[in-house]
Formats: sequence, C-alpha cells, structure tokens
Amino acid sequence: MIRVTLTALALIAPLAAAAQQTPAPAGEVRGTGDLGVVIERATGSVLVVDQSERAALCRVEGLGDLSHASLVFSPDARFAYVFGRDGGLSKVDILTCTLNGRVVQAGNAIGGAISDDGRLVAVSNYEPGGVKVFDADTLAPVADVPMGSKTVGLADAPGSRFVVATWDTGEVWVLDHAADPAKPAITRIEGIGANPYDALLVGGRTYLVGLFGEKGLTAVDLWADPPAVKRILPDYGKNEADLPVYKMPHLQGWTLAGATYALPAVGLHQVLWADAATGAETGRTDVAGQPVFVTARPDGRELWVNFAPPDNGTVQVIDAMTHEVKQTLQPGKGVLHMEFTPRGREVWLSARDDDKVVIHDSRTYEKLGEVPARAPSGIFFTDRAHRGGL
Amino acid sequence: MIRVTLTALALIAPLAAAAQQTPAPAGEVRGTGDLGVVIERATGSVLVVDQSERAALCRVEGLGDLSHASLVFSPDARFAYVFGRDGGLSKVDILTCTLNGRVVQAGNAIGGAISDDGRLVAVSNYEPGGVKVFDADTLAPVADVPMGSKTVGLADAPGSRFVVATWDTGEVWVLDHAADPAKPAITRIEGIGANPYDALLVGGRTYLVGLFGEKGLTAVDLWADPPAVKRILPDYGKNEADLPVYKMPHLQGWTLAGATYALPAVGLHQVLWADAATGAETGRTDVAGQPVFVTARPDGRELWVNFAPPDNGTVQVIDAMTHEVKQTLQPGKGVLHMEFTPRGREVWLSARDDDKVVIHDSRTYEKLGEVPARAPSGIFFTDRAHRGGL
Repeated sequence: MIRVTLTALALIAPLAAAAQQTPAPAGEVRGTGDLGVVIERATGSVLVVDQSERAALCRVEGLGDLSHASLVFSPDARFAYVFGRDGGLSKVDILTCTLNGRVVQAGNAIGGAISDDGRLVAVSNYEPGGVKVFDADTLAPVADVPMGSKTVGLADAPGSRFVVATWDTGEVWVLDHAADPAKPAITRIEGIGANPYDALLVGGRTYLVGLFGEKGLTAVDLWADPPAVKRILPDYGKNEADLPVYKMPHLQGWTLAGATYALPAVGLHQVLWADAATGAETGRTDVAGQPVFVTARPDGRELWVNFAPPDNGTVQVIDAMTHEVKQTLQPGKGVLHMEFTPRGREVWLSARDDDKVVIHDSRTYEKLGEVPARAPSGIFFTDRAHRGGL
Repeated sequence: MIRVTLTALALIAPLAAAAQQTPAPAGEVRGTGDLGVVIERATGSVLVVDQSERAALCRVEGLGDLSHASLVFSPDARFAYVFGRDGGLSKVDILTCTLNGRVVQAGNAIGGAISDDGRLVAVSNYEPGGVKVFDADTLAPVADVPMGSKTVGLADAPGSRFVVATWDTGEVWVLDHAADPAKPAITRIEGIGANPYDALLVGGRTYLVGLFGEKGLTAVDLWADPPAVKRILPDYGKNEADLPVYKMPHLQGWTLAGATYALPAVGLHQVLWADAATGAETGRTDVAGQPVFVTARPDGRELWVNFAPPDNGTVQVIDAMTHEVKQTLQPGKGVLHMEFTPRGREVWLSARDDDKVVIHDSRTYEKLGEVPARAPSGIFFTDRAHRGGL
C-alpha cells in the first residue's frame, strides 16, 4: 500500500551543516563517470561509491528521512539531488563529499526529476500534493503547481517538460517550462484510470502509468497532439484472487526488451510480458515472490528481479528470449534495489539487512565484492545524468 | 571510396611530449559528465569542450595524423583514447589537458573500441590489417589478431567481446576476451557479403554491416548461437543508376527510431527506411545531397542529416513519424559531424571550413553559440563512456 505520513510542513530550512566525510578523497581531481551514490535509508546519509574500485569513497550525512528516497544527477555528474520522504531536497557534491544545499520543501515527497537542460529540479509531493520546481544551482523556488492530489511518477520529458500522474484524480499533467519556468504551460490529460501508483517514461515518447485502483495500466503517447491514451493489459489479474501486496512494485523496473514490456505483477508471483505496440499480454513467468524491480541488463538479454518480503533475500534472472528463470540467487538479506554498471558488466545489489552492497558479475553470476553500507536501499550510478525520464 | 594510405609502419613510439594547454583550467576539481572532445583534423590536436559553458577548455596537441579519427572514453569519463589515421593510439587526460600516452601501433588505422570493463582498447587496422588490443592503463600490447584483411566497424559487444568486419574477405569476427585477453577466443562468420565498409552494433544484439561491393546490408544476430545472418534491404539500389560516391556514409549514423532503421543510401540523395524485424524497405526520403550521418535526436523524434560535398554546408532535419524533411539549415561550411548533448537539448556541429563548432537548439533550430576550433571534424561527448558498441 502507499503509505502517506503526515509530517510537519517545514519550508526552506537552513543548509544543514551536518555533512561529514569518512575515508574522504574529497576534492581529488578525478573523473566522475564511474561514481555512484547509495542511499542509507535508516541514517539519513548517502555513501559515495567508486565502481572501478568496488569501494566506498565517503559518506555525507544530514539528509533527513530517507526511508523512501531517490535521486537524480546534474549534467556534469558532480551533484546528486536527493529526494527524501520528509519533503527534503538535498544537493550533494560527490567530489568534495559535502552537502551543498538543502531545503525541506513539503511535508511528504515521493520523488523528483531534473530538466533536460539541468537547470530545474522538480519534486513530486504527497503532502501538500502537486509539484514544486527549484533552481538546480541555488535550490531557490521557481514554481509551485498544486494539482489537488498526491502526485506520483514524476519524470522529465524531452523538450523542457515534466510529466506526472495524480493519485487522487487519475490524471496526467504535462508541465512545459520552455517559455517561462515560473509559469509552466499545463496540459491535463483526464481519464487515465483509478489511483496511479507510479509511472515511467519509456524512450522519450511513451509515459506508462501503473494503476492501483483498477486493473491494467495506461500508456500516454506524448508524440501525439493531443497526447493519446491507450490501455495496456486491460484484463490483467481480473480472474485471479489477488494476494495481499507486501510492497508496491516500482515502475522504474519496467523494461523494454526488444519490443516487449516486462513488468512486475502487483500482488502476484509473476512477471508479465506485454507487446509494446498493441498492449496485449504475451505471456507470464512464474517467479519466487512478489516482484518489486524487473530490471533489464543494459544489453537487454537478461532481466533481474527482486521481491517483496518475505522473499526479499532472493533474486532471480530471467532470459529475455525464452522468458524462463535461468538463475536463482541469494545475494543477501533484504535486497531492496539493483543497479547495473552502465555497460552491464556488473550488478550492484543493496542488502539492507546485511548492511552491505554486494557486487555480482552479471554473466557468471559470481560474487565479485561487497561494500559495507548502513541499511542501503537505492543505488544510483552517475550515467543516469545522461538519461532522461528517470 | 575507402582510401588506403600506406604510411611507414612505426611501432610503440615514445610518449609524445607535445601536449599543450591553452585556456587551461587543468587539474580543476570538476565533474566530467558535461565535457567533450573535438578532433582538429588538420593539426593533429584535440579540443576539450564544456557543454554547460558552450566553450573550449583547452587544447592537446601532438596526436599525429587525425585526418580520419575517432575516439572512445574510459569508464570514469576522464581519458579519451584517440584513434588516428596514421595508426596512432593516443590517451588524453581531459581533466589535466595532457597527453598521457601514445603508441603508433600500425601503419593505417580506421577506428577502435574499448571493452565493457574498460580494461582493453582495441584498434581496427587497414595496414597491416586485423585488430590489435592494448592495455587501457598503460597502452602496452595485449593481443594481435591478424585477419588477412583490412578491418572495419570494430565495436565492443556486451560480455567481453569485440566484433569487427573484414573488408577483403567479407567476414565478421567475434573476439571473446573473457578467459584470456592475450588469446581471445575467435568466432568467424563467413559469407557476410562483398567489401563491408562499416558496421554498427545496435542495442547490444544486432551487428549491422554495410556492404560496398554489393547491394544490401547484412545483420548478424549475436544472441543466436551460432550467430545468425540476415540480409537487410537486399534490393536497395539495384534498379537505379548510382551516383559517384563523394564520401562514404558512416554507419554510426544508423538509427533505430522505434522499430525502424533510418540509414544513408550510398551514392543516392536519399535516406532509406527499413523495418528492423524483417529487413524490408519501408520507404525513402529525398534529401539535399548524399547523406553521411543520419543521427537521431536522443528522444528519437527527429533525425538530423549531413551531406557529402558539394552539399556539406547543408543539414536537414527529418520527422521520424512522417519521414518528411521539416527543416533545412545552413549552419556553416563543411559540416563533418553532429553530436547531440546527452539528453538532446542541443546539437553541436563541426563546420570544418569555418574553423568552428556551431551549437543549435535541437527543437527551435536557432543558433545558441559557437566555439572556435581548427578544422574540426568529430565531436564526442563523455556520455559515450557509458554506451557500448560505439
């Protein structure tokens, strides 16, 4: 279930000076292409990691409640904008390992995005709802767009746009900030479906919305004018007794492997396959639990799947051609997230209950190393700076 | 035509100390995600550029003959490996603006690739032919694979492999260096077609080979075991009187826009469209000259095309949905290459005969700026570090 925690509304808090370096090669002249940031969900800190060394570089603290957090990177891959559960927006300098800025912009936030020119950071809020937009340099407020609803699935779309879905009203809003970032032009698309719980931009064209209040999913074609709405998998789950949902799947896990979507079934021990062109179901793969992330290796040949409790110590690998499970791993306790190195050689998995990130070869599946981390959740590598719709 | 210049064979030349900084913020602590490198083809130099500032940072000289040059980046986006026409392999540190190393490894080279773990750099040679592999750290030789042919289209494939096509023998060779980089396991695929002139890896799965000695192109499915060979556009051009070819198109310009390939027709004033699944021709777009690069904007919505002489002052923009030319620009004299910023906001174009790089907004088409450069050709942004098959 989506939990909505009403915390006190704090606005534009002073810069928290609690940043702290640990091993700290801070200020080293080095490339940032092989760096990454790991969320430490219980301690309000992030760990800066080096993919090449398979090691942590330093820790930055003072980021507030990171119990559900995500982040995006600046175009130069130096700054991480961290979106915390408590409405905090923190800007972390991963080269100097310092907290460059922080505002508490809402009472409860769910995620964010950075515009395709790197100038604006937008945050999707549960409380008070809507979307707020900030200057990426200074974190000064730029725009506030109430939507009369909690918002989910905020993504930056090509051409100076943010796209978001509304939980309470079942709409998609497109905010175009090309002409005036302070007053984005708004396109509202109604009738998306009941209670969107997450959404994802695929390939710069299609905005996929997962529905919690009814079966099926909705695809919005942003190339059409006006945007065209199509239902995907409209029959999915209708004839089956749903299981209780132990953890909402993440639509970031959706995958376009060839012309096929692979997606986690809500409440079922299955991965669903759909034809990207028609939206029709093309098959199902039985898996070890309720899938959370279904993530394609960058070459698209295999998909890695993690699971909700009680199966969150298991990870399975599915063959994209045969749709069969080809490997089952037990990489650690409480696997919350998986991130591939950009060209797919390795996969890093956060084992929250083992207080470590474990690293596996993505082809031999053998363990290559591990990095100690405090209750790690999301892992984000800097190549994300160059990809839209995250 | 492919020109083969027989220059004297030089081996492992000493490090050329001719590196030189110009404006030089060398050694600055900064992210490398928004940097790039521009080849200055006539002066054996490269210009390091900053996308965010739309400016040059510094120049590195002493790279030999760059009249046909390309480069790849290290995983940390700090080092550029530049492949020169004269067989030179130069390693440039773009943060300190210095030449970190240089070997002349053959008499005539056409391009190269870096392995998906960043440890090996491979070079495709015309003279003496074959492929040579080097340690990415030291540039020490690791492997030498003669193939009895000039080689083209060298690409790194997922899973520790290099793939290359042979001009003289019409084959594709897959070199697997997972077990022993010094002795790669070789898979030879014969019967590719007469005189491959370039090749491209699409999506980690399909290796597309352009043929000069016969009509059509060949696609190799690297997921099949053994790799499966399919002909694409087998009838293309057969009923038409070919024009003389003023400049060979680059298959790097090929594009998968949705499920469709757009590709430059050799010797014709046309862009060809093919169905990616069947290989069948689906249409043609008449353009202003012989296309060289057909490059999709990162969101896939529009394609930018430049042309061989005498039309190399023109650039056209094609709508990916309608296949119609929607804009014709004259951005400068002798436009040799186009590179989009990673998320597609801007396109940078090298205007060789104007000695500058010009920058255009990729949606309004308006000019945003320019960067002086000496006879610029290829433009390479560091996000390439994270993409395979380049």
